[in-house]
Amino acid sequence: MSFNTFGRVFRFTSWGESHGPAIGAVVDGCPPGIALTESDIQPWLDKRRPGTSRFTTQRQEPDQVRILSGVFEGKTTGTPISLMIENVDQRSKDYSEVAQAYRPGHADYAYDAKYGLRDYRGGGRSSARETASRVAAGAVARLVIPQVEIIAYVSEIGGDAIDPAAFDASEIGNNPFFCPDPAAAARWEALVDAARKDGSSLGAVVECVATDVPAGWGAPLYAKLDSELAAAMMSINAVKGVEIGDGFAAARLRGEDNADPMRPGNDGRPVFLANHAGGIAGGIATGQPIRLRVAFKPTSSILIPQETVTREGAAADIRTKGRHDPCVGIRGVPVVEAMMALVLADQALLHRAQCG
Amino acid sequence: MSFNTFGRVFRFTSWGESHGPAIGAVVDGCPPGIALTESDIQPWLDKRRPGTSRFTTQRQEPDQVRILSGVFEGKTTGTPISLMIENVDQRSKDYSEVAQAYRPGHADYAYDAKYGLRDYRGGGRSSARETASRVAAGAVARLVIPQVEIIAYVSEIGGDAIDPAAFDASEIGNNPFFCPDPAAAARWEALVDAARKDGSSLGAVVECVATDVPAGWGAPLYAKLDSELAAAMMSINAVKGVEIGDGFAAARLRGEDNADPMRPGNDGRPVFLANHAGGIAGGIATGQPIRLRVAFKPTSSILIPQETVTREGAAADIRTKGRHDPCVGIRGVPVVEAMMALVLADQALLHRAQCG
Amino acid sequence: MSFNTFGRVFRFTSWGESHGPAIGAVVDGCPPGIALTESDIQPWLDKRRPGTSRFTTQRQEPDQVRILSGVFEGKTTGTPISLMIENVDQRSKDYSEVAQAYRPGHADYAYDAKYGLRDYRGGGRSSARETASRVAAGAVARLVIPQVEIIAYVSEIGGDAIDPAAFDASEIGNNPFFCPDPAAAARWEALVDAARKDGSSLGAVVECVATDVPAGWGAPLYAKLDSELAAAMMSINAVKGVEIGDGFAAARLRGEDNADPMRPGNDGRPVFLANHAGGIAGGIATGQPIRLRVAFKPTSSILIPQETVTREGAAADIRTKGRHDPCVGIRGVPVVEAMMALVLADQALLHRAQCG
Amino acid sequence: MSFNTFGRVFRFTSWGESHGPAIGAVVDGCPPGIALTESDIQPWLDKRRPGTSRFTTQRQEPDQVRILSGVFEGKTTGTPISLMIENVDQRSKDYSEVAQAYRPGHADYAYDAKYGLRDYRGGGRSSARETASRVAAGAVARLVIPQVEIIAYVSEIGGDAIDPAAFDASEIGNNPFFCPDPAAAARWEALVDAARKDGSSLGAVVECVATDVPAGWGAPLYAKLDSELAAAMMSINAVKGVEIGDGFAAARLRGEDNADPMRPGNDGRPVFLANHAGGIAGGIATGQPIRLRVAFKPTSSILIPQETVTREGAAADIRTKGRHDPCVGIRGVPVVEAMMALVLADQALLHRAQCG
Repeated sequence: MSFNTFGRVFRFTSWGESHGPAIGAVVDGCPPGIALTESDIQPWLDKRRPGTSRFTTQRQEPDQVRILSGVFEGKTTGTPISLMIENVDQRSKDYSEVAQAYRPGHADYAYDAKYGLRDYRGGGRSSARETASRVAAGAVARLVIPQVEIIAYVSEIGGDAIDPAAFDASEIGNNPFFCPDPAAAARWEALVDAARKDGSSLGAVVECVATDVPAGWGAPLYAKLDSELAAAMMSINAVKGVEIGDGFAAARLRGEDNADPMRPGNDGRPVFLANHAGGIAGGIATGQPIRLRVAFKPTSSILIPQETVTREGAAADIRTKGRHDPCVGIRGVPVVEAMMALVLADQALLHRAQCG
Repeated sequence: MSFNTFGRVFRFTSWGESHGPAIGAVVDGCPPGIALTESDIQPWLDKRRPGTSRFTTQRQEPDQVRILSGVFEGKTTGTPISLMIENVDQRSKDYSEVAQAYRPGHADYAYDAKYGLRDYRGGGRSSARETASRVAAGAVARLVIPQVEIIAYVSEIGGDAIDPAAFDASEIGNNPFFCPDPAAAARWEALVDAARKDGSSLGAVVECVATDVPAGWGAPLYAKLDSELAAAMMSINAVKGVEIGDGFAAARLRGEDNADPMRPGNDGRPVFLANHAGGIAGGIATGQPIRLRVAFKPTSSILIPQETVTREGAAADIRTKGRHDPCVGIRGVPVVEAMMALVLADQALLHRAQCG
Repeated sequence: MSFNTFGRVFRFTSWGESHGPAIGAVVDGCPPGIALTESDIQPWLDKRRPGTSRFTTQRQEPDQVRILSGVFEGKTTGTPISLMIENVDQRSKDYSEVAQAYRPGHADYAYDAKYGLRDYRGGGRSSARETASRVAAGAVARLVIPQVEIIAYVSEIGGDAIDPAAFDASEIGNNPFFCPDPAAAARWEALVDAARKDGSSLGAVVECVATDVPAGWGAPLYAKLDSELAAAMMSINAVKGVEIGDGFAAARLRGEDNADPMRPGNDGRPVFLANHAGGIAGGIATGQPIRLRVAFKPTSSILIPQETVTREGAAADIRTKGRHDPCVGIRGVPVVEAMMALVLADQALLHRAQCG
Repeated sequence: MSFNTFGRVFRFTSWGESHGPAIGAVVDGCPPGIALTESDIQPWLDKRRPGTSRFTTQRQEPDQVRILSGVFEGKTTGTPISLMIENVDQRSKDYSEVAQAYRPGHADYAYDAKYGLRDYRGGGRSSARETASRVAAGAVARLVIPQVEIIAYVSEIGGDAIDPAAFDASEIGNNPFFCPDPAAAARWEALVDAARKDGSSLGAVVECVATDVPAGWGAPLYAKLDSELAAAMMSINAVKGVEIGDGFAAARLRGEDNADPMRPGNDGRPVFLANHAGGIAGGIATGQPIRLRVAFKPTSSILIPQETVTREGAAADIRTKGRHDPCVGIRGVPVVEAMMALVLADQALLHRAQCG
């Protein structure tokens, strides 16, 4: 069953296909009186925009967002905010091959098994193009929680990780990989180029940190921040793993090494001596930075031929021609940030609802 | 904001605290006409039950479930099924220390930050005791999808992993660790004993496989099976990481190595040559086994003293006396299975809703 | 599809059958720190309790509520509040007739058509006994919005209406009909007695007024207060009509007679010169009293034989023996009040979520 | 809190203001494989379209719908269907008066009380223009349940009712009032003309009947068909009352007169001898026609001056110039039909989910 709405009280509903006339998002539940124009949204879309370097797909999309409702005289009115982005560069091509045969690693077979039909043009609804809707909605979410700072970056491509000691947030915008370690960025250039030239693709790990999240946001159990964030990240195309704080590494620690001891702080609030928990205890923010890691698999669209079957059940070989990201995780960075903002904005309102 | 209901159409609502009179779950949306008695639920609770070996908490709870509604003449009626488990062994003790000081790694501080008060007896609502409600609800979920087989096991404790080549499903029930590799089980005995004697604790990794899930269950994007499963697993106490299929390892593969090629099968359906995707493509089941991994952090309750602060903001040292699991991941096995069953039952009904 | 949870953020989940061991409600999303004991709930249940006069069913139920979770040291903790009421007087009787034949006006046939089976003992889940769960949950809701006063009363039985000019709120508790007009109450005594002796039953109209609801609660369109209240009232057994403010009478007014003109008030807020709208404009509270009317059909369980069919499709005559309310609308009064409280508590929290 | 999504599994999200660039709806959860083009939707919008007679507003809107997603090669794909209708005739006018003073009967004051600001151009989000989104979504819903026939009509304007004996469904399309009684239609012409010339407005009652609804759709209690339909109808602008079946008249019947007795039918299913219940028992469809009545208040926008206050709290007189429906209930007919279709499509899928 299709569920294209995300969130509990601060919500957005996403729609659109890769090769339809447009895509969009309807943001509902936004507080009133927030200053909002297209120029508050556009920079985040530009960050995700394809075709900006040779390391992303060469599809040319201006990704110009229009606000169609919910804003009056430059301010949100509390009613639904309809955001639309027209698709411009739906290059005409021959889709007969992908219409007939299932691309391994893609959703082709699964869609057919579920729905009995699928929009095969550019991946249809399962295209990463849908993530532009999230980024647009996420830009609104950021305005709901201006006190929170959210930064994501690529920490690993094709198994080659940054040096944590070399982390420099100011470097993230200085290279086409959202990489905080200049030396790693330089290595990745060769790495991604090689994969691209081979007609192959690479996976990546994206990390995200949200600071100044007030202690108390979140909730126990089925709305745990861990759970909401994991759902949000896993809903992004190509994501197959999520870690909160130390994640799987925590499973290898002893209790005393994994605890985050506290000391009295100057402002009456505790100072934590570590943050293995990633800023969340019992599902609730502790006030420490919220840290998570997201695993992106390599792009499934590759030029290297693969064994597959046709809709009629015959054996076939397929290679996915066209324009693709050699490493879809790179452009995942603004998407991960957007989903973090969307979860936190929702939780901020929910916390206010229950606890005033 | 508290959300204690899980699921979209097959739902359960969980309630109860560690040291209250009882805990329970209300299962709603269950199809009618399913044979159901307490004896369909009790075995799964017994699997999770504390006090069955020296490797789990010594709290003695019979965990006897009662069905209070929704069943008539041995069959589900389609109305809500109320399940209740009385708490029996709420050993009286002095809680003044834990009432005053925050246990590192626990939800104590976060609860106070959110709610301004907390039930500190045995962890209150944040106790792993809540997972009995899930296991009870999960037992009902299994009956909704009898065609699906779900098996979970511990694959790693304290960094010591099983040998995949030695995997033997029939061994899982033969040791107190739900371990499919007898050699690993033997090593873990010493490992967990040592941690327990040190007053420390260990983390664990639990793996879960669901077979015979029909291709087509699940949905794109915000109800992706990956997303629903990640949310479900991350809502379990102590879980800090989830991987679907190859998870983070997929981020280190090249596209051609991560694809799951297909060949024509004898029954007209494709045969997959690999399952890196963990049985899910585009959020939809492919018919392959659904595979996931869950990281449990080490139990936060340890006897080793830790630095902390009191409610009044003073420095303090705290050690958590009482009865605790030295490795909470072990008893996580039936809980992970239950959450898998709950997600799949929900998705089975949702698929039928949309696609007939 | 069974949906036994009501509300958006302040929610309750109801469970239980007329002749099962117990019924109950789980209240979720309640703000923390609210003083709550069983004695805050019991008086409202006592108001709804059967067997207190000859004008209600003679079933004897103490309707003693127990709080099983969510309260610690006399205060709500923000976690789910489980409320349970044991069924005591499930008189054993022969149900073979009602098991075989469908009682006209009852849900018997519809349940069988939907579920293929039904719990026929005392109406099972479709019994008005379920409303005790609502009253218990509603008692908690009242504590969330202590500033609001909610009063309901019977304004009409069997077509005999109160005289609005004789309305006296202090009379409501002085007669077994929750009637604010002593003269009407006296007439109803004879009216209901006659129907009871005939083995027949009567319908009723219940009115409810909520005062001191802050202007601004509610929301446009799909969460309009009108809509939420209508859904709440129509979910009560035997209710077949709802009017907000003037309701159907407004359809007979001209625009200038239906408008609620305003004048400047002393406190800066407008003073309304009329309240045709029932305190709600555009779905949002105006600060005027919220007024609604609810139509209860006559109890379907009557001793007068009626034509029907059996499960096997044969013709039959049926009369419903047993203990029944001759006018189910009377005991609807505390239920209507509870649903008003539940909707307003939910909307209060939602308003705070979006608008601070 | 703004909730602009309606439905549980078959859902739509509505957006847009009266004088913004466009309005629209995103339909989610639609089954795949249904033939759908704009021409399946347009006729229903044309029925609701303004400016088609002197008895409706003179605003000229072509109400041309565009399908932006969710359809491929003429069939629904199971992904969200984005429907957009551009606003064409947003006549420029001076809004300074309505920006400053609250129109009685309108949502002006309530919006300001809630949000602190409002889009006052043409009523903004509270304009009946929003109902075009519902009609568009409802057209899709009809295709999900092709077996069901839905007809609505005006049964009363300004207190002047049709003669039930003169009911002729084929007449509904023959007059500008959706009136099934030609004699009443003739009377209403004079009645509405007179109100229009007076600068006043009239209320109306709309009735709706859905036939061939399978017995079993719906659910007990909080998803009762009565409850879902009441919520749906009450969410429409200007609606203040809903009756299912006999509604308030049932409150004046005795039990034996309100029962719907049954006799064996030729096809094994019961034949009902009456339909006081409006086709719903215990919240579940009985297979009889679902009948309901909806009360529309008179249009609040009238030319007759009324006392009011300004945003600053000063006394003022206001008359609402511009183009308005003299009786908003007339164009409510296609909206009521749409909401009926939307509820039933949702319930059809939910029934299939739980009961197969």
